[in-house]
Amino acid sequence: MTDLPTKMKALILNHDGYSGTAEGPSLDDLARWVTLKEIDVPNPTDRQVLVEMTYANVNPSDIHYIKGEYGKPRDKGMPAGFEGCGTVVAAGEKAGDMVGTRVTVSTSQGGSGTWAEYAMTDMASVIPASEGLKDEDAAALIVNPMTAFAMVDLVEQSGAHSFVMTAGSSQLGKLMASLARERGLHSIATVRREEHRSALEGYGVGTVLNTERDDFPDMLKQAMKQHAPTVMLDAVGDTVSARIFNAMPPGARWILYGKMSPDVPSLPDLGQLVFMKKSIEGFWLSQWMSEASPEERKRAFQTVQQRFIEGKWRTDVAETLPLAEAPARLAKAMEGMNRGKILLRP
Amino acid sequence: MTDLPTKMKALILNHDGYSGTAEGPSLDDLARWVTLKEIDVPNPTDRQVLVEMTYANVNPSDIHYIKGEYGKPRDKGMPAGFEGCGTVVAAGEKAGDMVGTRVTVSTSQGGSGTWAEYAMTDMASVIPASEGLKDEDAAALIVNPMTAFAMVDLVEQSGAHSFVMTAGSSQLGKLMASLARERGLHSIATVRREEHRSALEGYGVGTVLNTERDDFPDMLKQAMKQHAPTVMLDAVGDTVSARIFNAMPPGARWILYGKMSPDVPSLPDLGQLVFMKKSIEGFWLSQWMSEASPEERKRAFQTVQQRFIEGKWRTDVAETLPLAEAPARLAKAMEGMNRGKILLRP
Repeated sequence: MTDLPTKMKALILNHDGYSGTAEGPSLDDLARWVTLKEIDVPNPTDRQVLVEMTYANVNPSDIHYIKGEYGKPRDKGMPAGFEGCGTVVAAGEKAGDMVGTRVTVSTSQGGSGTWAEYAMTDMASVIPASEGLKDEDAAALIVNPMTAFAMVDLVEQSGAHSFVMTAGSSQLGKLMASLARERGLHSIATVRREEHRSALEGYGVGTVLNTERDDFPDMLKQAMKQHAPTVMLDAVGDTVSARIFNAMPPGARWILYGKMSPDVPSLPDLGQLVFMKKSIEGFWLSQWMSEASPEERKRAFQTVQQRFIEGKWRTDVAETLPLAEAPARLAKAMEGMNRGKILLRP
Repeated sequence: MTDLPTKMKALILNHDGYSGTAEGPSLDDLARWVTLKEIDVPNPTDRQVLVEMTYANVNPSDIHYIKGEYGKPRDKGMPAGFEGCGTVVAAGEKAGDMVGTRVTVSTSQGGSGTWAEYAMTDMASVIPASEGLKDEDAAALIVNPMTAFAMVDLVEQSGAHSFVMTAGSSQLGKLMASLARERGLHSIATVRREEHRSALEGYGVGTVLNTERDDFPDMLKQAMKQHAPTVMLDAVGDTVSARIFNAMPPGARWILYGKMSPDVPSLPDLGQLVFMKKSIEGFWLSQWMSEASPEERKRAFQTVQQRFIEGKWRTDVAETLPLAEAPARLAKAMEGMNRGKILLRP
């Protein structure tokens, strides 16, 4: 470690713990939540690895987290950022053979965040990048692709032949679309702009529903009748989601994995839950990861890497921002998040 | 069938189909929903049995149904009433050997309702009453006792050590209390009046929470910490239910089986469903019955009858109304439903 610097630039958290709010992953001003500072480079011990970051990723879960609305408390003064890619440059005694390896790194289970020149995490939370995998893909290999893989698996295992995905034009929606089509599942994606329709059909979406159109109620009814989807994978959690759930057939499962809208819908009525045997639950990748067997995780990691290498999946990068410019520029860049991912470059 | 009359008095439904409302099982005026009329006595064929009613029962599900808020559409002109007891006086060719048998009858799966001098249903929907079972107990043997049996089973099979039941001082709450205690489950019952506390403790409830007291938030917190209940069996579905759900530990299941309050709570936030792996679902006895194996159903029927015969369970009868007087008197009698069951006598 003699040639490593002792100081690094990082976007560190401004607050501790939870905020108690539930605003969702919209961002007014990044500077309110994180600050660019020079801090000590972490020192890996035991099973830890230190990764020199090539790209860090910006996911909705990062925004939930910095705002204190995620599933674990903030740690003031620590770097933010759950995902990215880079090269292992130092390691504890049990992880020494990883030095020099190009990896995807996740710090959502713990460690020092990726929105920094160096990130640190447990050796189980890095995935060696296969040859042929681009850095841009390696930077966004876990949060979206693994969620897509796990959720399409969940739909398939539930016995559904069709499912609804809200926020269909998100990166995750596009990933799920092609995977679902290959597995013979008919996907029904909601969008809010007509211009997303043809792109989504190209990705393999079976039915695109524009929730802003006047004929949405009729189109919804028709799609439910024709395809009888019994799972809704929902990133939005608003009254439109509730309306779709109400229109779904008996046995339908509303699975929330994100909350893009601050809108708070009412609990569905007795008839929906009791007489139609519908249910409402959540999906969290961290939970899935901790419950999956090592074999399941390995199969998932291999599948997602292979899909990127073969060109079945790709990471659409909307913008790459220098880390130091993120506080001033990220909120604006995120306004067009449907354009693709935003990466941070240390 | 020569000595049977051809006409009978019955409380027949005033409306068809669903109402589209979700007011819950409160009753302003029974005469708005049913009318006393003289109609033809039904003629059983094939697997059907005709039962001369001794008592008919009034359950919240009956009120849901006559108001058009239940899981199946109303059939205008048909007698209301899902449950009661009586004697088989005629039968179709496949059910002939049941004539003369004292039975509990359920018409919730179909047939001609129990709020009448005669009810008719499939032979699978009557349970021969064991000797020693009182008519009052036989009249209320299915809806509440079977639900109590099935839901306590559900709690046990979920692996929970403790559970919450709202509307704890209901008939169903009392039935569940003793059964749960015998199975080693700690029950936490909510009530709205202090006077119900000692009675419920006598029935075997582990913890009684009065939701109207100022110290309810503290008591709730303490009960959650001490007993960590992971199932809530909820007959109310209001914001108090939602508040309890939010206070429950990770993995908690909110199981709605009734909707006594017209109050509509908000969908719990992302953190509850996603990060704490909680879920919301429903329970419907008709569904349970149709999914249970014949052996499971038999075990359940035997268990519930035996509990009444042994005096472990009893049916508290608040009032017995002549069928003809129900339109004028039922709504008032129901104001004190916590006092016990209301039976109708043809």
